[in-house]
Amino acid sequence: MSQPARTSEAGSVGVVETFHLDLPDPVRLDCGRELHPVRVAYETYGTLSPERDNVILVCHALSGDAHAAGVAKAPPESGTRDGFGAEERDGSSAKGLGWWDGMIGPGKAFDTDRYFVISTNLLGGCRGTTGPSSTDPATGRPYGSDFPVITVGDMVRTQRAFLDALGIERLAAVAGGSLGGMQALEWAISYPDQVDAVVAIASTHALHPQGVAWNAIAREAIMRDPAWQGGHYYGTGRAPDAGMGIGRMVGHITYLSAPALEEKFSRRLQFADDLRYTITEPEFEVESYLRHQADSFVKRFDANTYLYISRALTYFDLARQHGGGSLKRALEDVRARTLLIAFSSDWLYPPAASQDIDRALRSQGKPVEFEVIDAPYGHDCFLLEEARQTPIIRRFLARGGAG
Amino acid sequence: MSQPARTSEAGSVGVVETFHLDLPDPVRLDCGRELHPVRVAYETYGTLSPERDNVILVCHALSGDAHAAGVAKAPPESGTRDGFGAEERDGSSAKGLGWWDGMIGPGKAFDTDRYFVISTNLLGGCRGTTGPSSTDPATGRPYGSDFPVITVGDMVRTQRAFLDALGIERLAAVAGGSLGGMQALEWAISYPDQVDAVVAIASTHALHPQGVAWNAIAREAIMRDPAWQGGHYYGTGRAPDAGMGIGRMVGHITYLSAPALEEKFSRRLQFADDLRYTITEPEFEVESYLRHQADSFVKRFDANTYLYISRALTYFDLARQHGGGSLKRALEDVRARTLLIAFSSDWLYPPAASQDIDRALRSQGKPVEFEVIDAPYGHDCFLLEEARQTPIIRRFLARGGAG
Repeated sequence: MSQPARTSEAGSVGVVETFHLDLPDPVRLDCGRELHPVRVAYETYGTLSPERDNVILVCHALSGDAHAAGVAKAPPESGTRDGFGAEERDGSSAKGLGWWDGMIGPGKAFDTDRYFVISTNLLGGCRGTTGPSSTDPATGRPYGSDFPVITVGDMVRTQRAFLDALGIERLAAVAGGSLGGMQALEWAISYPDQVDAVVAIASTHALHPQGVAWNAIAREAIMRDPAWQGGHYYGTGRAPDAGMGIGRMVGHITYLSAPALEEKFSRRLQFADDLRYTITEPEFEVESYLRHQADSFVKRFDANTYLYISRALTYFDLARQHGGGSLKRALEDVRARTLLIAFSSDWLYPPAASQDIDRALRSQGKPVEFEVIDAPYGHDCFLLEEARQTPIIRRFLARGGAG
Repeated sequence: MSQPARTSEAGSVGVVETFHLDLPDPVRLDCGRELHPVRVAYETYGTLSPERDNVILVCHALSGDAHAAGVAKAPPESGTRDGFGAEERDGSSAKGLGWWDGMIGPGKAFDTDRYFVISTNLLGGCRGTTGPSSTDPATGRPYGSDFPVITVGDMVRTQRAFLDALGIERLAAVAGGSLGGMQALEWAISYPDQVDAVVAIASTHALHPQGVAWNAIAREAIMRDPAWQGGHYYGTGRAPDAGMGIGRMVGHITYLSAPALEEKFSRRLQFADDLRYTITEPEFEVESYLRHQADSFVKRFDANTYLYISRALTYFDLARQHGGGSLKRALEDVRARTLLIAFSSDWLYPPAASQDIDRALRSQGKPVEFEVIDAPYGHDCFLLEEARQTPIIRRFLARGGAG
C-alpha cells in the first residue's frame, strides 16, 4: 500500500483571501426559527464568466472551512487544510493550503481556467460563517447552545441566499465529499432548476445507524465534559477540549480503514520493543497518533460547531425529508446530471449508500454516473485520492458543455 | 435476521455462590513488581472427580466476573450476566444469571454432568478479585492508579496459583471468549504440560491496531474525566462515570456489527417520525440505547478496572511475548489440543486472527480445529450464539477422552 499520487502537473490558484458577506434577510430554518444576522465566509477561485454560467459551488465536510484551495493570505491560525483528517497527517497545514487544493486549480478536477469555484464555510461553522460562537443579537453574547438546531437543508438555504446576494442564479455544478456531498444532493432536490450537475463523493442519502452512533458518541463526549457548561463556555476561560478530543479520536478511526491503520502503525510500540507498563502514557504508536490528532484539532475548532454540524449530518435523510420514506420519490424532481464517487474501503459512507442513490436516479431515467474507486484509506480517500478522482470529474463536467 | 436460538433442552446449574480464596504467596508480575495479598473470587459448577482430571477453567472477558453460570445466591448488585454487552440487552441480568449460563450446565457445551467447571474473576477485576479498588497494604487505602500494570500473563499466573491452592494441577480444558480466549491461549503456552485442551472463541493472538485504538479511546475518555482524579477517586464521592460511559458506548458499537445495528435500530426516531431539533436529547433509538448501556454499566463496574484490563488486552501479543516476533515460535511448545471458533461478522476479533493461530499450530503438526460460524451479531456472538457453539465444543471435548 503506497501513498496515493498527487496531481503534480496542474497549477495552483495561488494566494487567496477569505471574504465575508452579510445576508440581507433572515434565514428561515427547518426547526421553525429564523436566524438573523447571518454572515457567510467564502473564497473564490477562477473568473466568473460574463454569462455567470460557470459557477461551481464546493461544500465542505464536518470540520472544514471556506479555505478549499490555494495558500491562505492570512497565516493560518493553526492549520487550515482540513476536511476531515488528512490535514494533520501530511503536514500541509503548515503551508496554509486549502483542504481540497489537489482538486481545485488550473487543470485540476475543478478547473479554475474554466470554472469560477466558490467555497463557503457552512451555516453553524466556526470559521467565519455565523454559528454557535457568533453573537446572539438578543443577548449580545455568543449563542452557545441557544443557537438553533440546524439541518443540511438550512445550510443549503443559506448558500442559496448567499449566491443570490452575489447575483448568481445558476450553478454549473455543486460538489462535495461526505457532508459536502449531502449538501450537493440537497441542492439538486431543493433547487432542481438551478443546478446543472452534482458531484457527491464518499457521501450518502442517510447515514447508517452505526454512523449515527459514532456521531452520538462524539457529541456525548463533548457534552459530558464539565467544561462544556451546558454549551455556554465562551468567555469562561474553559472549553470542552478534553471531550472534543475524544470525539475527534472516534472520528479519525472511522475515517480510516482497519487495513490502513495496520499499514500505517501495525502494533509498533512508541519506545523500542519494550513495554513501559503504563496506563496513562501512550504505548503504541497509534495511541500517540490519536492524542496528537485530538490536541491539534481542539486548537482550531469550536466544540459547539462540532455538536451542531454532527447533529445536522445525522438528521440528513433524503427519503424521510423529501420522499415520505421513499428515496426514489425524494429524487423525482432532480434535473441535474449526477456523479457519485465512492471508495471501496470507506465503511462510514460505504459504496452501498451511493449505489442506493444511483439506482433511485437510474430507475427514473435520470442521468447518473457511479464510480467506486478501489482504494485502501477509508473515508479519508476523498481527500487523498485526488489523482484518481480528477479524470472522472473532469470527464463528467466536460460532458455538460457548460462553462 | 432472527434472534439466535438458545439451548433449551439442557439444564441449569441452579443457585450458585461466589467464594473467595486468599493466595498464600505474592504473585510475581511481568512489570517486575509483586502483588500481595491477592484474593481470588470464584465459582464452581459440577463435581470434581476423585482423580481431579475433569477440571475446565472458564476465563471471562473485559467486563465479566466469576459468576459465569446459574443463578446468583446473593441478589445481583445491578446485573451480573455479563461478558461484554449482551446482558443489558436481553434482560437476563434481572434474573442474576451467569454471563455464560447458556454454555455451562448439565448437557450444555461445558457439561457439568461430566466436568468440574471453575470460573474466577480475573486479576485487576472489581468483582471480588484483587484489583485497583482493593486496599493497598502499603497505605491502607485503595490502590487506585498505584495498582501495578498487569498483563494477561499475570492473570494466568494468578489463576495457576489459585488452582495450586485448590490442589488442582491439570486442566482438562481452559476456555474463554475474547480476552477470555487470550487467557486460554496464554495458559497453553505458559503451562504446556498442565493443559489438555484450549477453547479460544472470538479471540486473537494480538489485537489489531484499530482494536488498540478503540481501547485507547475508551481509556482516554475515563482519564480525561476530571472525576477520575488521577486514579484516586475512591472515597471522594465522585467517579469518572461520564468518561467510562463514553468508553462503554465505544465498546458496544465495536461488539456489534453494522448490519446488526441496521437490523435492530435502523434509523428509527425516538418520537414518532418527527425531529425534535435537539442537541442534548437522544433523537434516534440507537442514541437512546447507547445512553442506557452507559448508564447501567457505570453502576456496576469500576473505571480503574476498565483501564487496567483494557491495557492488558492491548498488550497481549503472543508473537512478541513468547516468540521473538514469530507466532509460530510462540506456539512451538503448545501440547494442548486447540479449538478456535470465530464469527463471520466479528470485526473486533476477526476470523483472520484465529486463522493465523490455526495456521501456526497446523504448520507444526499440532492438533487444532478452526470453525467460523456465519452469524450477524459481531463480536457479541460469543455470548449469543450458544446453540451453534455447543455441538462444536461438545464434540471437541469428547474427542479428548478425559473427564
